[in-house]
Amino acid sequence: MSQSTNIVWHESHVTKEERVNLNQHKSAVLWFTGLSGSGKSTLSVALEKELHAQGIHTYRLDGDNVRHGLNKNLGFSPEDRTENIRRIGEVANLMVDAGLLTLTAFISPYRTDRDNVRALLDENEFLEIYVKCSLEACENRDPKGLYKKARAGEIKSFTGIDAPYEEPNHPEITVDTEIQSLEESVQVIINYLKEKQYIDARR
Amino acid sequence: MSQSTNIVWHESHVTKEERVNLNQHKSAVLWFTGLSGSGKSTLSVALEKELHAQGIHTYRLDGDNVRHGLNKNLGFSPEDRTENIRRIGEVANLMVDAGLLTLTAFISPYRTDRDNVRALLDENEFLEIYVKCSLEACENRDPKGLYKKARAGEIKSFTGIDAPYEEPNHPEITVDTEIQSLEESVQVIINYLKEKQYIDARR
Repeated sequence: MSQSTNIVWHESHVTKEERVNLNQHKSAVLWFTGLSGSGKSTLSVALEKELHAQGIHTYRLDGDNVRHGLNKNLGFSPEDRTENIRRIGEVANLMVDAGLLTLTAFISPYRTDRDNVRALLDENEFLEIYVKCSLEACENRDPKGLYKKARAGEIKSFTGIDAPYEEPNHPEITVDTEIQSLEESVQVIINYLKEKQYIDARR
Repeated sequence: MSQSTNIVWHESHVTKEERVNLNQHKSAVLWFTGLSGSGKSTLSVALEKELHAQGIHTYRLDGDNVRHGLNKNLGFSPEDRTENIRRIGEVANLMVDAGLLTLTAFISPYRTDRDNVRALLDENEFLEIYVKCSLEACENRDPKGLYKKARAGEIKSFTGIDAPYEEPNHPEITVDTEIQSLEESVQVIINYLKEKQYIDARR
């Protein structure tokens, strides 16, 4: 294995464009952000199911597969929340490089953290999806009983209660889960992806 | 969006098995380990090129896309090296879950660190590939001039010089880059993947 051979091989590594050609759809991050209980997880699961059924190569990052693995050595301080989102952004960037339509479902309350992830990616590769829902409605849903615990002081620094949530200024897509049904919300996003040619409109 | 709808959707998320069905090949980590200059990077690039040409969905993690991104806040102390490999292992695990045949090319000198990654993955999903090459031959190749700098004391804790390399005890595959050509080494791994039915033997 001569050094010159070495150099030749390195220059011909598989590119993102070649993966996109193999997959027959573009890669990007669909970054869901919103309060706890707003419907990020539900919506991203339903959307991924639909995309997969259409033959799209997807992956979904969420608390279940990240907090107990890659980010298990992080807590909930502002610094650790920022590092949490930074690492998720870096992994999402790798997944996009791998050709996947990557969905992430995290509260990601700080605008700066989300903008830092956007900056990692190429133009049009970061789609911020604001899952809009009033604090009141989220608290009424309270599917995991977390708001109740936060109000009782059993959870500290809970987003919306005693920690801030910063709304996106210019999200690519906004869905309002107090008004739109799950099916409608999924369709809004699918339509966007087809219109902007991330996926083939004929699928 | 009722809570019961929420639960139904969560239970029907896209599984690894469904992604594997879509891709028509299994997912696993091909974990290359060996000294600097042994040929890990060259071999993994050449192998990925060949797999991609056969329609396999692959991704390659290496220093270029990890050290300057996900792991840019880590140095080269033993603790940071361990955290470096831990994070790479967690990302590789996510990529395998995403259905990709994932190649990693890192010195990964500590046996315990590699075994910890193996433990993250399901059985038969971690293939340790020992890229064997004597220190003498690696030092003669010295493609990046790193051994020269390490001998001059300009780089500290350099694997093989003043930091240990622990050989794998039971690697799934061993290639000896002092004896085997690049083409032969690629073929050995392809043959293994076909024989063990990670990829279709008729490709």
